[in-house]
Amino acid sequence: MDEKKDNQELSPLQKARLKYSPKIPQILQNISAVSFEIGDQSLSVDSFPQISLNPQLRLISQDLETLSKPLRVGVVLSGGQAAGGHNVLTGLFDAVQELHPESRLFGFLNGPSGIPKKKYIELTKEYLAPFRNQGGFDAIGSGRTKIETPDQFEEALKTCQELDLDGLLIIGGDDSNTNAAHLAEFFLERGCKTSVIGVPKTIDGDLQNENIEISFGFDTACKIYSETIGNIARDAISAKKYYYFIKLMGRSASHVTLECALNTHPNLALIAEEIQENKETLVDVASMIADLVVARNEQGKEYGVILIPEGVIEFLSDIKALIKELNLLLATSGVHSKNLEELHSFSKKIEYIVPLLSEAAKSCFMLLPSLLQGQFLIDRDPHGNVQVSKIETERLFIHVVEEELCKRRKRGEYHGSFSGQPIFCGYEGRACLPSNFDADYCYSLGRLSAALIRHQKTGYMAAITNLNKPAALWKAIGAPLHAMMGLESRNGKLKPVIKKALVNLTSGSFQQFTKLRELWRLQDHYAQPGPIQFFGPKEIVDSIPLSLQ
Amino acid sequence: MDEKKDNQELSPLQKARLKYSPKIPQILQNISAVSFEIGDQSLSVDSFPQISLNPQLRLISQDLETLSKPLRVGVVLSGGQAAGGHNVLTGLFDAVQELHPESRLFGFLNGPSGIPKKKYIELTKEYLAPFRNQGGFDAIGSGRTKIETPDQFEEALKTCQELDLDGLLIIGGDDSNTNAAHLAEFFLERGCKTSVIGVPKTIDGDLQNENIEISFGFDTACKIYSETIGNIARDAISAKKYYYFIKLMGRSASHVTLECALNTHPNLALIAEEIQENKETLVDVASMIADLVVARNEQGKEYGVILIPEGVIEFLSDIKALIKELNLLLATSGVHSKNLEELHSFSKKIEYIVPLLSEAAKSCFMLLPSLLQGQFLIDRDPHGNVQVSKIETERLFIHVVEEELCKRRKRGEYHGSFSGQPIFCGYEGRACLPSNFDADYCYSLGRLSAALIRHQKTGYMAAITNLNKPAALWKAIGAPLHAMMGLESRNGKLKPVIKKALVNLTSGSFQQFTKLRELWRLQDHYAQPGPIQFFGPKEIVDSIPLSLQ
Repeated sequence: MDEKKDNQELSPLQKARLKYSPKIPQILQNISAVSFEIGDQSLSVDSFPQISLNPQLRLISQDLETLSKPLRVGVVLSGGQAAGGHNVLTGLFDAVQELHPESRLFGFLNGPSGIPKKKYIELTKEYLAPFRNQGGFDAIGSGRTKIETPDQFEEALKTCQELDLDGLLIIGGDDSNTNAAHLAEFFLERGCKTSVIGVPKTIDGDLQNENIEISFGFDTACKIYSETIGNIARDAISAKKYYYFIKLMGRSASHVTLECALNTHPNLALIAEEIQENKETLVDVASMIADLVVARNEQGKEYGVILIPEGVIEFLSDIKALIKELNLLLATSGVHSKNLEELHSFSKKIEYIVPLLSEAAKSCFMLLPSLLQGQFLIDRDPHGNVQVSKIETERLFIHVVEEELCKRRKRGEYHGSFSGQPIFCGYEGRACLPSNFDADYCYSLGRLSAALIRHQKTGYMAAITNLNKPAALWKAIGAPLHAMMGLESRNGKLKPVIKKALVNLTSGSFQQFTKLRELWRLQDHYAQPGPIQFFGPKEIVDSIPLSLQ
Repeated sequence: MDEKKDNQELSPLQKARLKYSPKIPQILQNISAVSFEIGDQSLSVDSFPQISLNPQLRLISQDLETLSKPLRVGVVLSGGQAAGGHNVLTGLFDAVQELHPESRLFGFLNGPSGIPKKKYIELTKEYLAPFRNQGGFDAIGSGRTKIETPDQFEEALKTCQELDLDGLLIIGGDDSNTNAAHLAEFFLERGCKTSVIGVPKTIDGDLQNENIEISFGFDTACKIYSETIGNIARDAISAKKYYYFIKLMGRSASHVTLECALNTHPNLALIAEEIQENKETLVDVASMIADLVVARNEQGKEYGVILIPEGVIEFLSDIKALIKELNLLLATSGVHSKNLEELHSFSKKIEYIVPLLSEAAKSCFMLLPSLLQGQFLIDRDPHGNVQVSKIETERLFIHVVEEELCKRRKRGEYHGSFSGQPIFCGYEGRACLPSNFDADYCYSLGRLSAALIRHQKTGYMAAITNLNKPAALWKAIGAPLHAMMGLESRNGKLKPVIKKALVNLTSGSFQQFTKLRELWRLQDHYAQPGPIQFFGPKEIVDSIPLSLQ
């Protein structure tokens, strides 16, 4: 126990939220009566000989004997913040206490590395009290470290054995849950009793599959971003002088952008998966946006709202090719990386690199404003790769649209005055007070995890389904982790990993979007969802993501 | 009437807000019984021989005869959006209707230029219905145009006479209200009956004086920004790897930053007025921030939250001097401006300009990262002046702090890894759903304006005081516009203008801040105010700015 509590002061709203009782599914009310029946069997996966025998588990209510021995459970938060994480901890804590009042919960500190390093604190009722229904991951911290090396696996095993853990909860995204599957497999192989259970966390919404309807944190993040987008749209239609280019966090997939578009009705929302499907280039998209600006100008409108998913850059075919060439050219092991390092002036670096590019890559590179040329050339990761998440896509689009409009102006096709404003919706959506939906969902996931651990299930993800119904009607299952896997190339080898879900272009929510977006282009159908509400009408405080409806 | 309504769609929360009944002061309940008694007399101002005879007016309740003739009133929104503007319109509309059911209200379109151009629409009960308690200025639009030339004054007079207006309400900031005073004076001079009344609007909070406790929009903007800052701070303490540099809108004065700091307890909040008082330079501030980073690093903390008022750049003595030199050098009339224009490469421009700078300005300019050198050199206004509001101060500080830490690392004084993230809180705080405070305050301002017009008062600002009491106990006065004036140099001539209020370093709220900030530096006392609430406990939904308490 090496971490002391910080001195955060609770605001009046934070204090009021402490008193909120999360709503839970009927089936998870009496946690002592929860049992499982066997559902579908999935195909086995070679890399997981043990856990791939796991069938799906469906919750049932059964008269069970009281647990004779207290449970000992460990929990860890992995990766970026997502609203509701603390409620997984409190849901788990309350449930293990209900199962046996002497059960104990241990929180590993600052991410998965806390397990092999055996850095933890005990999570007591008193310790958890100020974290109920609160944002952030700071009760135990989080981290992006993984358990990867054989040594780390051994040390993690040792920690779980020394702490005599019945269960270990790993709260994380696709990578962390892939890691959970490996740990479950390893523990079984080594006869360790610790059940390993995953919980689906990520604001990006890309951890979805037939058992997982949505990851937690997605709803709150989309509500926070939609609040901002709605406010910005109302500003646009009032001031009538800016085009707001709003970049939204959410990594590769465009789930966040799609959900926010359905909530706010922007004039345009780029969906990366559609751009990829249509094999569009940066120039294509710039031209499409310029078309919008010209058409709105003809209606006397010099303002607009455009949503941009942060991942779009990797889905533009020309930029993708450019990044690939630059990554090869600038690999840290190569000579060019060193030569470039030695050139101190930015223009010298450009003079050096441009002749090395193919014609196509060169013409794409020359489209970029100098600030972004710098982000492509200078901001590289330790392997020499372009750091895609650091590229300011919102500024890139403003620049290329300006260039395109400039050409059209010279040809007499445009007579307006375009003024773009870049906005980024990101970090503020990760650690905020969870919406009722995320508070309820997370608390339920914590309770479900306790039931899985009590029944010594391992290699499962806690899954709550029927989320578009009131919480009392939600269903709960144990979803086998191995069944979520697909093979992907990592460092040249095919490895089983939990598949990232991209936006499905045949899904209901995407279809709904394509039906409405024509209307949103030129007319202004902006909606302003406003701030998340915690008191008041049920349809407001208990609203769920539109893409779940 | 040349503007058709747009197709904005109301969200569930927007619909719920339509039903909110703003709270109003006792004295404004029965608007037909409102009269005025004469308060203090201010000194007369030469430029306003007529309106400077105006004493302060205090509201009293009196048995009055019913108004025999309906009122005809015009209203205009001027300048940037501020939450609550629509409630000034509805408060005014409801009051003139209560005074006489056949009264009519006309809204001039897209800012003050709508008056001389006679562009307006009639604001009816039905038209205003979807705007009650809503954000934005889009009911009639806004604009930054002023009524300045003799021709514009004549045309404005003509419009008011043709529309037979009893009153004209100008909802705006310091400049717009200065304009209102000139219009009131001119109308009196020309025997025009139209009363001109100003309403204090600006999120910046710099329209404050002995009669005006705060402008409307300030409360909501600060709450929106504090929501974001609180969320970011919670992210910082969870991820433990970023220093967030959060720039806050608010023009020159640091009122917004001070209010947000009191609400969220950041590790550091720059107050421009204090920096000016201490004659600090960019290097001084960079060094102060680096001290903070080093001290926190020694406690094992590699994260933090720093608030930066957007106006700070003009208060740093070295940057101020650099801007002054550049403005002189690059005046559009001069030779350097043209020469610079002809140089196409950015590095050539820098090579050209640097030798022309004084030693002090040169060393300050060379401190800037190239992106910002560009913002100083290229983004100039039509007169050749540096556009201070376009300078990305949050990135500037990250850059200079990085440089300073790099030096300290070389000297062995710092061993951490500093990673700065720039955040800008701006446009999203202007057109959002008004807080209860702003909804109540604005609706009351509208009602008070109706009373001033009914009694043919002109050259006044509607002023509600006692704002730290429940709305029923608020007081209302007519504050003479001329008494808010000070002489300022505009284009080389001394002119009377409404004084911008900077943060008073002897005020209670600043003193409170200085008392607490030492505690916030190294320990983490972050508070997370969360999203604005519209339902629920009174102390949450009816909270007022901390700097008013």
